[in-house]
Amino acid sequence: MDLVTIDDIRAAADRIHGTAVRTPLMPCPWAGTDRPLWIKPESLQPTGAFKIRGAHNAIARLSEQVRRRGVVAYSSGNHAQALAYAARQAGVPAHIVMPDVTPAVKIDNTRAFGAEVVLVPIAERESAAHALADELGATLVPPFDHPDIIAGQGTAGLEIVADLPEVDVVLVPVSGGGLASGVGTAVKALRPGATVIGVEPALAADTQESLAAGQRVDWSIERRVRTIADGLRSQPSELTFAHLRGVLDGVIAVSEDEIRDAMRVLATRARLVAEPSGAVPVAAYLHHADAFPAGRTVALVSGGNVDPALLAGVLGERESAGSQ
Amino acid sequence: MDLVTIDDIRAAADRIHGTAVRTPLMPCPWAGTDRPLWIKPESLQPTGAFKIRGAHNAIARLSEQVRRRGVVAYSSGNHAQALAYAARQAGVPAHIVMPDVTPAVKIDNTRAFGAEVVLVPIAERESAAHALADELGATLVPPFDHPDIIAGQGTAGLEIVADLPEVDVVLVPVSGGGLASGVGTAVKALRPGATVIGVEPALAADTQESLAAGQRVDWSIERRVRTIADGLRSQPSELTFAHLRGVLDGVIAVSEDEIRDAMRVLATRARLVAEPSGAVPVAAYLHHADAFPAGRTVALVSGGNVDPALLAGVLGERESAGSQ
Repeated sequence: MDLVTIDDIRAAADRIHGTAVRTPLMPCPWAGTDRPLWIKPESLQPTGAFKIRGAHNAIARLSEQVRRRGVVAYSSGNHAQALAYAARQAGVPAHIVMPDVTPAVKIDNTRAFGAEVVLVPIAERESAAHALADELGATLVPPFDHPDIIAGQGTAGLEIVADLPEVDVVLVPVSGGGLASGVGTAVKALRPGATVIGVEPALAADTQESLAAGQRVDWSIERRVRTIADGLRSQPSELTFAHLRGVLDGVIAVSEDEIRDAMRVLATRARLVAEPSGAVPVAAYLHHADAFPAGRTVALVSGGNVDPALLAGVLGERESAGSQ
Repeated sequence: MDLVTIDDIRAAADRIHGTAVRTPLMPCPWAGTDRPLWIKPESLQPTGAFKIRGAHNAIARLSEQVRRRGVVAYSSGNHAQALAYAARQAGVPAHIVMPDVTPAVKIDNTRAFGAEVVLVPIAERESAAHALADELGATLVPPFDHPDIIAGQGTAGLEIVADLPEVDVVLVPVSGGGLASGVGTAVKALRPGATVIGVEPALAADTQESLAAGQRVDWSIERRVRTIADGLRSQPSELTFAHLRGVLDGVIAVSEDEIRDAMRVLATRARLVAEPSGAVPVAAYLHHADAFPAGRTVALVSGGNVDPALLAGVLGERESAGSQ
């Protein structure tokens, strides 16, 4: 299987320039001195998550002729909005297939980016998206299972090493594995001595179990939906798992309480609104630092699309003993 | 009176490189298309506000010999923490004089940056700071009334024009006027056709009245403390007022409800935690767009140090009719 290379990621970085925000590394003076912390706030991207990197790269890779027939995605989350946004930027028509139970606000947001939203019963969304792409001659852009997506997400890793060449540890969320594959590939290519750790909810820790087993282990969707981290309920594909085996030094699983604590710390100390999925690397930093080496640590906050009521609730909670 | 020049600001930019975060401009796809909006999130600075720019520049301008005797500030707010942080980065001792009624968390935060905190009765803080500086042979670093502070804050304006050379409108908070003076000077020098608007709370709208009168008008501190925007209760000095007269095209005064609305919009749409003072430019964008020209608009979010209970309360409020 061909894996994404640092050259693929460098080429993606040239393509996404001007569409994705060049997010800074934020030093965190409130963090421990033996593990100085920087945050990479991907929540600042125009649609509130890193997904714009992969979506834009995938579209930019299409020929003019293919592009004109449009793109299709099935997603109700950050990938849908990212693809709609990137398509509009590129002047490409976009159809987003969503379950008919999707909250109206997410449908409206996606439509606001100029995408056509197609509502179908949840069980049919994948088949409906394929059928629609066939009918339109459009290109289906998957959320993670594609080299162009992995290379696009990897540009965040390129930026981390460019801004902090002496980085020791990178903490990155893992779910479908597109982000962790790309970031890990970039970091390991440019700073081979750095440790790259995937972070996932303990309630959806299929990747931790899969890497330990040396092969993909399937967790039922019923198990995975239990976590509040709604962006981390997917599982790696064959392609992303092949990357993760090569680039991850380990996986940390964090509890739901740790995720909420990290959201609160991010809001009050780093002044960032993070969604639960985006907060997991900071949860690992705050509560599982014994599981990775000391040194200059970067936590990638992948997104900030959170229900305001959940954020308000988290802000009302008491600081836990584990956080500093 | 000598005013700060674009060359002073450029020199400051060289000095602060590596201490202040190079904040990005965030495109806001949720904003109106006739007034596309970008946010400059200074809340991402290490101490949560733009103040690090001026504080670092002021320290860097001191000679090695003067520096060794340390710096002093009187402030319980963002300037105190910024000076403490910048001093530690430069290896310079810092004394911060605070009112003895300062909340413990602010005292602790300032001490955590290695500064010596001196608590005095609130009425004595200015005189105590001067006496302490004299006693130590240390340099008093004021929050806004100094060319090095103005030049430092102006680096944010330099970055705005570098990232968006075709900017049409810049909205910036105004209080003591260091930030608005510096940003206005930079923007007017590099993009003379751009409109620069100061924004302040209607409950502390002394600058609006002063500019209309052509001279500084004093509002009692009792009037100014009514606003929740606790970082915008100061008044321009002779020096900053001279700058503001030259560089501001107008001042917009926003209501307390509009400030709360902007905080909510920033958290939910831009995924940023803004303090009330930091949210006023977005309040002007959302509720007073008729007061400035259409075109490419930048709102500078100056800081994010807010009481979590206030933020939680704001998140529970209903979206107002005025915001989109």
